[in-house]
Amino acid sequence: MNRRKFLKRSALLSGLLALNPIDTFANTDAKSISGTKGKAKNIIFMISDGMSSGTLAMANLYSKNVLGRSTNWMNLYTENKVSRALMDTASASSIVTDSSAASSAFGGGIRVKNGTLNIGANGEKHLPIWQEWKKKGKKTGCVTSVTITHATPAGFCINSSSRNAEPEIAEMYAEIGFDVMMGGGDEFFNPLKREDKKDVYETYRQKNYQIAKNKSDLQNIKKNKPLLGIFNTGALPYSIDKVNDKSFQNTPTLAEMSKTAIDQMKDHDKGFLLQIEGGKVDWAAHANDIPALIHDQLAFDEAVKVAMDFAEKDGNTLVIITTDHGNANPGIIYDADATKKFESISNYKFSNEYLLNSLHSDFNLQQIKDLVFEMNQFSLTDKEALELLSFYNGLEKEDGLYNYKKLPYKLFSEIQKKHNSVGWMSMDHSSDYVELAMYGPGSEQLKPFVKNTDVHQIMQNALGK
Amino acid sequence: MNRRKFLKRSALLSGLLALNPIDTFANTDAKSISGTKGKAKNIIFMISDGMSSGTLAMANLYSKNVLGRSTNWMNLYTENKVSRALMDTASASSIVTDSSAASSAFGGGIRVKNGTLNIGANGEKHLPIWQEWKKKGKKTGCVTSVTITHATPAGFCINSSSRNAEPEIAEMYAEIGFDVMMGGGDEFFNPLKREDKKDVYETYRQKNYQIAKNKSDLQNIKKNKPLLGIFNTGALPYSIDKVNDKSFQNTPTLAEMSKTAIDQMKDHDKGFLLQIEGGKVDWAAHANDIPALIHDQLAFDEAVKVAMDFAEKDGNTLVIITTDHGNANPGIIYDADATKKFESISNYKFSNEYLLNSLHSDFNLQQIKDLVFEMNQFSLTDKEALELLSFYNGLEKEDGLYNYKKLPYKLFSEIQKKHNSVGWMSMDHSSDYVELAMYGPGSEQLKPFVKNTDVHQIMQNALGK
Ligand SMILES: [Zn+2]
Ligand SMILES: [Zn+2]
Repeated sequence: MNRRKFLKRSALLSGLLALNPIDTFANTDAKSISGTKGKAKNIIFMISDGMSSGTLAMANLYSKNVLGRSTNWMNLYTENKVSRALMDTASASSIVTDSSAASSAFGGGIRVKNGTLNIGANGEKHLPIWQEWKKKGKKTGCVTSVTITHATPAGFCINSSSRNAEPEIAEMYAEIGFDVMMGGGDEFFNPLKREDKKDVYETYRQKNYQIAKNKSDLQNIKKNKPLLGIFNTGALPYSIDKVNDKSFQNTPTLAEMSKTAIDQMKDHDKGFLLQIEGGKVDWAAHANDIPALIHDQLAFDEAVKVAMDFAEKDGNTLVIITTDHGNANPGIIYDADATKKFESISNYKFSNEYLLNSLHSDFNLQQIKDLVFEMNQFSLTDKEALELLSFYNGLEKEDGLYNYKKLPYKLFSEIQKKHNSVGWMSMDHSSDYVELAMYGPGSEQLKPFVKNTDVHQIMQNALGK
Repeated sequence: MNRRKFLKRSALLSGLLALNPIDTFANTDAKSISGTKGKAKNIIFMISDGMSSGTLAMANLYSKNVLGRSTNWMNLYTENKVSRALMDTASASSIVTDSSAASSAFGGGIRVKNGTLNIGANGEKHLPIWQEWKKKGKKTGCVTSVTITHATPAGFCINSSSRNAEPEIAEMYAEIGFDVMMGGGDEFFNPLKREDKKDVYETYRQKNYQIAKNKSDLQNIKKNKPLLGIFNTGALPYSIDKVNDKSFQNTPTLAEMSKTAIDQMKDHDKGFLLQIEGGKVDWAAHANDIPALIHDQLAFDEAVKVAMDFAEKDGNTLVIITTDHGNANPGIIYDADATKKFESISNYKFSNEYLLNSLHSDFNLQQIKDLVFEMNQFSLTDKEALELLSFYNGLEKEDGLYNYKKLPYKLFSEIQKKHNSVGWMSMDHSSDYVELAMYGPGSEQLKPFVKNTDVHQIMQNALGK
């Protein structure tokens, strides 16, 4: 239903209600009326990757207690603007999914095995929804804070038997011709970094893409050309480090990329589909890195505002805000000083990753203690400093996903816990049912408990397939 | 609005819609129409104490994968029968609440300091809702799987500056004259166990109470007499132990107590208020005791069915299903065999508490291994058996809430984790926003994000205060 028609009907309905007030509907909020059953011209699908329930709560508690305002996500609830559901995130191979199977459930509408992208049990390829609607004439794109070829964007775009095929995925994107792709991953495009020395940027240029390498480049882009934005090797820096290390100041935020992507596609007469991923929320959870986690969740929340500001004005956009799975189930632990301890996280100037990368094997104990105090405002004991040091002089090491340098993430989060009262149940994904919110046309389809694959069908229905 | 009036209005509305179909309302579900704004004659308030999001999910995953059916709680969502919210559970003193402050928020409508029951910052007493409406003529009661004098029932019933005043709370209940009180806590009623040797059972008898001590007694109770049911010293046994240790077979389940309580009060012309607490879900979380946690959550879920069966037939009952706070944020951790490992919990015959209580300092390693294998169907290594033993011969000990015997709960859950892939972020409460569902008249007031104190106001509104 278009806006004019809707207003007309609303007026009509108000009239009827005025004639005979029906208190059954007295508490029917704006949401259930403006969330009209109907067709969406655009979809913005927002994924805070690996966001456990506790992550959403802690980001809001931090925002309220330290920054003095609620998050945009929670404001949507307070203002009763969205429909909500719990979502079962299992994959075909496990009750605990990885991001590729989870994204395939959203993007391809089927549950596949962990590690694969839209490839069924017998090798059959399921057409990813962004690719399908690209062919049908919509503009389509993805922005992320990790590599643009990572599992979550890839699951909406391509088929691959392995999520690790990122060099190939970079080429597939160009072949299909998505309109806006932004994130990290220079190593999959740059001939100097690719194993096969192929210049994949050149492939994009030949397909008429404009290529942005930093935030300034985004000021000068043209509307009617596809856009590839690659802002780092590997993932983009954590949001907290971007604020406090000036060398990252020309890297766009997730909100800035989101705004650019919407602006690039919003005037297309057939509409657009955009995926926005807060991918490093997942990485922070894998590393039990609380400053990184909270600030990247808040950066995602800024992107929520960008999406909602557009959708509320537009009226024809379905916005889906969720995660693909829980990760590490963090939370603030009961303690006489829990509130004060939790708020002390506002003293942390960098991610734990940044801090631990700043330590070196030739540091003495005092240097380690000084650095931690400088970055986190608490004092290590000698024993703690010594334990940390043992990871740098090769006596100890820690493994873990995305922990390329074998840093002592777990040890450091255990040390921090005494000061911030935050605990973690693991360094990996969880089976928890997760939070999902929807706004706009199509959102009325949402039931209170859904499977991840149901969300694919809701999108297809809203798009009128 | 009464039922006849409602049907009349519904019919009128259908007519209007037929004249001019408004697709805005096409997907308005039964829930939003039958959850009429209006007055509730009865309230059933169900609290699975200390239920993190992961606990709800794991109980449903276990129920589906092992028992072949979804939980009643999740079925309410699938069938779209209830309104849902996220709830902020903080107390006046901390972002992480305890059960007494949480129950005071529900029961007294104000946030108080952890450890206190409906006593404000300046010592003022806030009238607990069950007490208030008892005086106004409703029947009121509580059933729980822990001591009936514990924080969660007490928060709806009495004022006390300390939740630990359980002997006094037992007497306060009699003074006020609640109609049905059932759970554990013989030590607070029995003159042989009370420090002051007072016979509190006698106090109840003099107030015309009938007293039940076991399940059989519940077969012979009269309708028009108040009921005190005390079925154990301390809390009731865990549900899984009740099934597998025949000595507990005359202890009622939470569902049985709930059914009895509803039957005792349902014919009262002014209606009734009933609190149902799955109190040992919290204790199991404090002990990282996964078989206890899952089976007590499932026992709570059976009580959900009892409450909903009554409420759906009755039509005038507001049912609230929630928890007071998260605890330990458990979840299934990503693992190649996560599903199979998680399902192996169905091999566990007893709670970890029961198992660890069955070990003794004079056991040799083989005896420890045999006992664990018999009860859990996996084999300990020698090292693990030795570590366990060190807690029994006094070399090691573990503290913790409700861990009266200093049992090695944490160590044992770490051992189990290798076999069942379940992790825990702590042995204490968390700050997570928690799940809340409402059914029936009054539930239409629920917003998507509420404070625990808001729920008090919703009840008062529904009761017509
Ligand atoms: Zn991950
Ligand atoms: Zn507790």
